[in-house]
Amino acid sequence: MTSTEWSKREKEIARNAYQAAYERECEAILHKVRTMAGEATDPEGLWRIHDYLTEKRKHTDEKYDYRYSVLVFVFARLIREGWMKEEDIAGLSEEKLHEVRQILGIGGGG
Amino acid sequence: MTSTEWSKREKEIARNAYQAAYERECEAILHKVRTMAGEATDPEGLWRIHDYLTEKRKHTDEKYDYRYSVLVFVFARLIREGWMKEEDIAGLSEEKLHEVRQILGIGGGG
Repeated sequence: MTSTEWSKREKEIARNAYQAAYERECEAILHKVRTMAGEATDPEGLWRIHDYLTEKRKHTDEKYDYRYSVLVFVFARLIREGWMKEEDIAGLSEEKLHEVRQILGIGGGG
Repeated sequence: MTSTEWSKREKEIARNAYQAAYERECEAILHKVRTMAGEATDPEGLWRIHDYLTEKRKHTDEKYDYRYSVLVFVFARLIREGWMKEEDIAGLSEEKLHEVRQILGIGGGG
């Protein structure tokens, strides 16, 4: 498989890795919401939770883009931010993994 | 004082009652957010908290309107919904209290 063609198996790996990263990031947001809700003592503290969630929802909606044409960029970003590990996408074609590493700046020349 | 003129003392009573009601309602919303955050187990549960806060913020922004021209309506609504008690606004002119009761449908003929 090249970097633009995705086999059935690759799609399965990609979907699982993507979904797991999304759930990890949402879990971290939820953890933060619990902390903020536990510490809030006034209306300002309450609406700060809303502001935080509004921002996070906007960012995650933008970031989690499952079009195959952009997926290597999405994966590179998720790896950089720590929501995904390289081993989560093991099984993708060497070309795709190479592209991800290139975007991450760890791919060497080429 | 008539229902359209507000003395310094009335303004003080009104502001305190209004602020206390707002804090009570925000406290109830915060309590619900804590429960939702504690029970959420997936991204859907997380974003339900955001939807809930978005709706509540819109509603409270609309409801808590401190223009003196509409304040008797605001107070009547807050009393009906349980965020304010009639005794919280004791000290306002009889005319204003009468208007509030009228709006609440407990004022007798008018």
